[in-house]
Amino acid sequence: MAGDGTDQRALQYEQTLMYGRYTQELGVYAKEEAARLRESGQRKSISATRNLDLLEYNKGRCAKCRICTVRCQKFLISRVGEDWIFLILLGLVMALVSWAVDFCIAICLQAQKWMYGGLDSNVFLQYLAWVTYPVVLITFSAGFTQILAPQAVGSGIPEMKTILRGVVLKEYLTFKTFVAKVIGLTCALGSGMPLGKEGPFVHIASLCAALLGKFMSLFGGIYENESRNIEMLAAACAVGVGCCFAAPIGGVLFSIEVTSTFFAVRNYWRGFFAATFSAFIFRVLAVWNKDEETITALFKTRFRLDFPFDLQELPAFAVIGIASGFGGALFVYFNRLIVQFIRKQKAINRFLMKKRLLYPALVTLLISTLTFPPGFGQFMAGKLTQKEALVTLLDNRTWAKQGIAEEFDYIGNSQAWKHPHVNVFVTLVLFIVMKFWMSALAITIPVPSGAFMPVFVIGAAFGRLVGESMAAWFPDGIHMDGTIYSIVPGGYAVVGAAALSGAVTHTVSTAVIVFELTGQISHILPVMIAVILANAVAQSLQPSLYDSIIRIKKLPYLPELGWGHHEKYNIRVEDIMVRDVRYITLNCCYRDLHNVLLTGHLKTLALVETAESMILLGSIERAQLQSLLSQQLGRPRRMEYIKEQATADKKRLSVISNPCSEDSSHRASQEVRFQISTEESSFSPTRPASQKPLKPALKRVSVVERPTELPTSPHDNSGMALKNLFCASPDAEGLEDDVDVEDDMTIREIAEWEEKQLDEQVNFNNCKIDPAPFQLVERTSLHKTHTIFSLLGLDHAYVTSIGRLIGVVSLKELRKAIEGSVTVKGVKVRPPLASFRDSGTSSSETEATELHKLWDRHKSISLPQDHMPSESDEKSQ
Amino acid sequence: MAGDGTDQRALQYEQTLMYGRYTQELGVYAKEEAARLRESGQRKSISATRNLDLLEYNKGRCAKCRICTVRCQKFLISRVGEDWIFLILLGLVMALVSWAVDFCIAICLQAQKWMYGGLDSNVFLQYLAWVTYPVVLITFSAGFTQILAPQAVGSGIPEMKTILRGVVLKEYLTFKTFVAKVIGLTCALGSGMPLGKEGPFVHIASLCAALLGKFMSLFGGIYENESRNIEMLAAACAVGVGCCFAAPIGGVLFSIEVTSTFFAVRNYWRGFFAATFSAFIFRVLAVWNKDEETITALFKTRFRLDFPFDLQELPAFAVIGIASGFGGALFVYFNRLIVQFIRKQKAINRFLMKKRLLYPALVTLLISTLTFPPGFGQFMAGKLTQKEALVTLLDNRTWAKQGIAEEFDYIGNSQAWKHPHVNVFVTLVLFIVMKFWMSALAITIPVPSGAFMPVFVIGAAFGRLVGESMAAWFPDGIHMDGTIYSIVPGGYAVVGAAALSGAVTHTVSTAVIVFELTGQISHILPVMIAVILANAVAQSLQPSLYDSIIRIKKLPYLPELGWGHHEKYNIRVEDIMVRDVRYITLNCCYRDLHNVLLTGHLKTLALVETAESMILLGSIERAQLQSLLSQQLGRPRRMEYIKEQATADKKRLSVISNPCSEDSSHRASQEVRFQISTEESSFSPTRPASQKPLKPALKRVSVVERPTELPTSPHDNSGMALKNLFCASPDAEGLEDDVDVEDDMTIREIAEWEEKQLDEQVNFNNCKIDPAPFQLVERTSLHKTHTIFSLLGLDHAYVTSIGRLIGVVSLKELRKAIEGSVTVKGVKVRPPLASFRDSGTSSSETEATELHKLWDRHKSISLPQDHMPSESDEKSQ
Repeated sequence: MAGDGTDQRALQYEQTLMYGRYTQELGVYAKEEAARLRESGQRKSISATRNLDLLEYNKGRCAKCRICTVRCQKFLISRVGEDWIFLILLGLVMALVSWAVDFCIAICLQAQKWMYGGLDSNVFLQYLAWVTYPVVLITFSAGFTQILAPQAVGSGIPEMKTILRGVVLKEYLTFKTFVAKVIGLTCALGSGMPLGKEGPFVHIASLCAALLGKFMSLFGGIYENESRNIEMLAAACAVGVGCCFAAPIGGVLFSIEVTSTFFAVRNYWRGFFAATFSAFIFRVLAVWNKDEETITALFKTRFRLDFPFDLQELPAFAVIGIASGFGGALFVYFNRLIVQFIRKQKAINRFLMKKRLLYPALVTLLISTLTFPPGFGQFMAGKLTQKEALVTLLDNRTWAKQGIAEEFDYIGNSQAWKHPHVNVFVTLVLFIVMKFWMSALAITIPVPSGAFMPVFVIGAAFGRLVGESMAAWFPDGIHMDGTIYSIVPGGYAVVGAAALSGAVTHTVSTAVIVFELTGQISHILPVMIAVILANAVAQSLQPSLYDSIIRIKKLPYLPELGWGHHEKYNIRVEDIMVRDVRYITLNCCYRDLHNVLLTGHLKTLALVETAESMILLGSIERAQLQSLLSQQLGRPRRMEYIKEQATADKKRLSVISNPCSEDSSHRASQEVRFQISTEESSFSPTRPASQKPLKPALKRVSVVERPTELPTSPHDNSGMALKNLFCASPDAEGLEDDVDVEDDMTIREIAEWEEKQLDEQVNFNNCKIDPAPFQLVERTSLHKTHTIFSLLGLDHAYVTSIGRLIGVVSLKELRKAIEGSVTVKGVKVRPPLASFRDSGTSSSETEATELHKLWDRHKSISLPQDHMPSESDEKSQ
Repeated sequence: MAGDGTDQRALQYEQTLMYGRYTQELGVYAKEEAARLRESGQRKSISATRNLDLLEYNKGRCAKCRICTVRCQKFLISRVGEDWIFLILLGLVMALVSWAVDFCIAICLQAQKWMYGGLDSNVFLQYLAWVTYPVVLITFSAGFTQILAPQAVGSGIPEMKTILRGVVLKEYLTFKTFVAKVIGLTCALGSGMPLGKEGPFVHIASLCAALLGKFMSLFGGIYENESRNIEMLAAACAVGVGCCFAAPIGGVLFSIEVTSTFFAVRNYWRGFFAATFSAFIFRVLAVWNKDEETITALFKTRFRLDFPFDLQELPAFAVIGIASGFGGALFVYFNRLIVQFIRKQKAINRFLMKKRLLYPALVTLLISTLTFPPGFGQFMAGKLTQKEALVTLLDNRTWAKQGIAEEFDYIGNSQAWKHPHVNVFVTLVLFIVMKFWMSALAITIPVPSGAFMPVFVIGAAFGRLVGESMAAWFPDGIHMDGTIYSIVPGGYAVVGAAALSGAVTHTVSTAVIVFELTGQISHILPVMIAVILANAVAQSLQPSLYDSIIRIKKLPYLPELGWGHHEKYNIRVEDIMVRDVRYITLNCCYRDLHNVLLTGHLKTLALVETAESMILLGSIERAQLQSLLSQQLGRPRRMEYIKEQATADKKRLSVISNPCSEDSSHRASQEVRFQISTEESSFSPTRPASQKPLKPALKRVSVVERPTELPTSPHDNSGMALKNLFCASPDAEGLEDDVDVEDDMTIREIAEWEEKQLDEQVNFNNCKIDPAPFQLVERTSLHKTHTIFSLLGLDHAYVTSIGRLIGVVSLKELRKAIEGSVTVKGVKVRPPLASFRDSGTSSSETEATELHKLWDRHKSISLPQDHMPSESDEKSQ
């Protein structure tokens, strides 16, 4: 009773303290708390009801208040586990963040305009203001991100793609990263550089979901489940896009296309729910802020509904699609080229590594100089912000006829496209070309930033260019009979925007995003056609921007099978698997373990029954084996041994009858042991032991000839095995071992003892074994293997044939096989092996042969067993 | 050379013949052809180039023509393998089918109207015409479908869902079914019953894809790949919805939600590509047919863009969503109730089974009587077809103010809602109520039909009702300041339609379909909110309509994990697995095989190393084992035995030196054998042999006491084992065996010989073994198991612990555990087992213990082997 009371108080105390601790150590704290809650979970649920009754009689004035608190807590804990509460909270938080970021960005941009406008008396001062402002902001953003959390740099979609595949990226989902990303992003976009907020928002939403999950796990247990967390992260990605563009459907689809390989349809509603709620709040905030009268699209268009486009305009849309495909591929290639160029130039690289903030500053200076409105900027609508540019590009009216001033009232921004001496076509072309390389360059700046929006604007400009050309070519429209329907260049801009952004990101759902952004779906067919064509072209030329970044950053990710992957159906696992598997047997000795750990670098090792049968029993993690080995050779065990030795010595001293015979037998057996152990380790499972043939042999020799020589230095022999293993910090290990050299044993004795220990059979009792590692068959196709790997998020899979381990396939081999260009051990993988094979029925034969072997082996093993009578009986027939 | 020529000619001949054979036996023909092509594939590719050169010198006048043909063929074969050609063909065919079906339906409906209109002098004749026409059409449709392909009945989405999960449903994808479905659907919809075309179109598109795939496999080999076929079927489902509503995006999403559990994002583009192309062609056909001026939406709306709805209208939209959720659940429940009622009433059922066409006729009669426009139909807009009703419901104008006659010109159909004496609200309510039960009843008629469109119309009517009420309540709109924005009831109709159809099908993508159907996306937020709320309500009350049909039809499908499935994370495989696994050992004898096959009914059996080790080596199909057994006991082997016996007899006759000792030893050994075999089979792996304990014992006794009695009839003993096995046709088997009784052996001898054969060890050499059946661990959670089963389309998985087989989980157990209501062996699965468990670390302990056992066993086995010295050495330390 009293215990329960203090428990309760302690909980309340912790919960008030929590906010104080939140910022810095939530991770550890949440874990501890969750563990505590889990342990006391059942006890509490039983005692909670008792609490309620007992508290009635409790001393103190606030008994009622407490009962109420307890009841509220109970209710909260029971309800808070529901997914929808989590999703609503996530949506709400993200909408607020998105709105706040937008608000801050708008203020920043206004400030720049105001400064630039106020100084119009002096062009030089104007230029200084125009240039300094973004340089300062970008430099601050880069520096802030660098210091607080370098993981926040870039878009974050490649990382999320990797995380959703099941890979744990360190520090990518922490509060620090959240702060760095939000503030860094606001500053970066406030500078007016051609950067986007959509990629970072995917990351921010995921961060939000991860932090919210940790926070919610204080109330209930289900937030600890890993698969649930991944489901929530997938929903969060949708929220990120959804609240960035107020595009719930497009957000869900885009996030699926960009982050998932296989999508669980049961998570679909989560994304929709959270993204809709988030988009709703995001737009409601705008209404409350009196920016809008009601909830409408972000970039509302006003195209006519009755005749949106003519059938005969479709070829023009198709051209936009194809050209966008090439443009998108070029953008990705160009971006990669810049990164690789900077990396390769050692001198530049070394200089930039020292002065990390110089590169952002230089790039910003270059870009902002070129867009300076009184300078070159006047030929490329340089004074417009990204948002303003997009609004004018999606405009309803036709520019080519110079009939800009018609019935609409916001002429202001459209004026920027009109230059007194230069044609609007030239302005558009310059805008496209300049923005193209500027965007590709800008997204290499190490600040939190995305590429979607810049690409979107470039695409819109390209579409507008085609549209204006069409309008100039057919001033009265193409339609023949009856009413004149003039061409709407704004519709072309919509198509171009969707096509180019689709080409760069390799997604089809940009079409949906465009509909939601503009609030009109009348151009659905042109948009779909252009997006599909752009995707077809871009996907056959280059990886998507995100995959390109994944490759540049060398993140552990499995590439997609491309559009035409027929040959993938013909490659089998046996073509790509590594036949030389590191394994340990059930009856191996510690020396084998040691050797295996020395030669391989895989994270997990296969456990087979015997080296002959090779029946796969499970897999063990490397760390587990290392701990086994260190236990066996560790100090505690040695001390035990010394104690035993001491008691044995005492006994020997007391019973001194026949010392010599015992000793000699002991020594003889030991020598026999060495001989045999040598034999056995030549037969040891680690076949590639020949890679390091000298060391083990030397070591063994030195021990066998033990009376002849003393080791020269204590570092040579003591803890040898251990030192070889943990070579990362050999000195520390050596020192530790050196310390206890003095306590009771000489170095030689320790070495000797270790050698003895190494020859003992391994006891796997306390070892955690994965009893069902994933298995494939030799004839599994590459296509199926890829599917399974990406479905289950595997890192490696064993290839077995009727229980026998014959190979292993890891992500690396698979990636090589898919990318095709890399060869496996000198042989180009794809065509030679795949083409020689007939898809006939040889599989059953080989299986039968394998089985036969196993069967024969089994017969010979089971011969001396209890099945013998029946077998002899059979032979007698 | 000459051979090549004839080959070529044969191919051409076959290809001209092909169309003739196409209609009736494409299935078999395609398979044969594919097999032939596969075999000759490499030979051809080598010889094809040679052909080209050699043909130049060939005699005959059309050499050039031939070269051209060969070249074209080569090009076709190389190109035809591309996915996009397949998808374009699929889209084209489906667009044509969709348009043709629509055209025919329109003609049918016009004919009915014409008949009804022409007879307006006599109400009775009018009624007769109004009623007879649909009854005849529906009866014809039902009869035609019944005769040609009963698989074509119903929507087809449940079946496609099952097929895409990997289950092979017989005859569901044949040409017969295609014909039955298309013609049946056209007639059914032409009758004017409240039926939809969307579900059947999913099925038709899949049929198209399957047939097209078979047809294309004549050209290339990749069309035989099963996983590719499933990918194409998934795309086909998207095409089905896409070309039905001219809604490519919604089609793709709807098909994903409705048919998939896990969706491969790499198939996404396929669906988009094919659906877009199909929708494009579908709408272009309408333009060419001069129905439309250009490509626009199917049910185009003209809501205002600048202020689509007020924020304060959102509660009304939410109410529509929630009410639609309840309505949708009610619809599914009601539909199931009707089916179950008809099934339960034995008398009705028997009568209906005899007169299969009576039920459709009666239902049609009832529905068409009630919609007769001069009768009750006048109160529920009975004279409108579904399409007309929908167009009027989505109308721009407000009815409540009776201001229908404004600027638009198609007043005609809207008049149907206006009754001189009855309020429009009453008409709407009656329409909703009547159509509700009519639709639920109509979709139980055994014709090809879907439920989407009727539900969509009911939803639109409900939305309209709410909208009109709102308009009557707030005649000047809700918005306070400035301009008056009146309420648009058509927007409410859009929201209602999306919400109700979403609730019935449990999909969110109806929202997208609605946007594409109406061509306006301005109501995105209300629609999304309503759809999500409707889904939330409906999913917590009832399964989706398709899942409900799956349950009614008892299709082999895995149910989804519901919205709140937290407790699923706590159930483990060990709670639901069947521990009593049927298995065979590697060294088992044919008798064990026989017993296992007799007792179990599983399709596959586990193959383990020995009964003690239980190490899982693979799984064997039942059919394989049966063929093994029949080979062993079959006539050819017996004849061989007889021959051997005869030669042995001859030898004995020639070498007559010591006959008696040999014979006695032979008999003695035989008797020993029987003794031992009895012992061994009591130790046999089929533990549940006690289910049929009498028969084997009796049989064995009758053989051991062989000299005492003769079997009374030849049926009793001959081919006993075989007969027990193939109990489906025991007489035929018996007769066949009877025939060769006379040839050389007596019945007794045969029985004896069979018993001998049964005791031989099984030779698995020619047996096809799946060497890597899917394995789970005891502690795999139900959630993960469900994921894996649905990801990989598994039917069963073995549960192993460090290689040892300890249980099996099949789809049945999983389904039971998920549905929760069903108990496994008397114990309610979910709460008791799940709650007792702490998520602690006991797993490693049990694993360790298991391993320990295995290790010990292994030690004892390997003791007499070559590892002995090292082990003894270890002991000596």
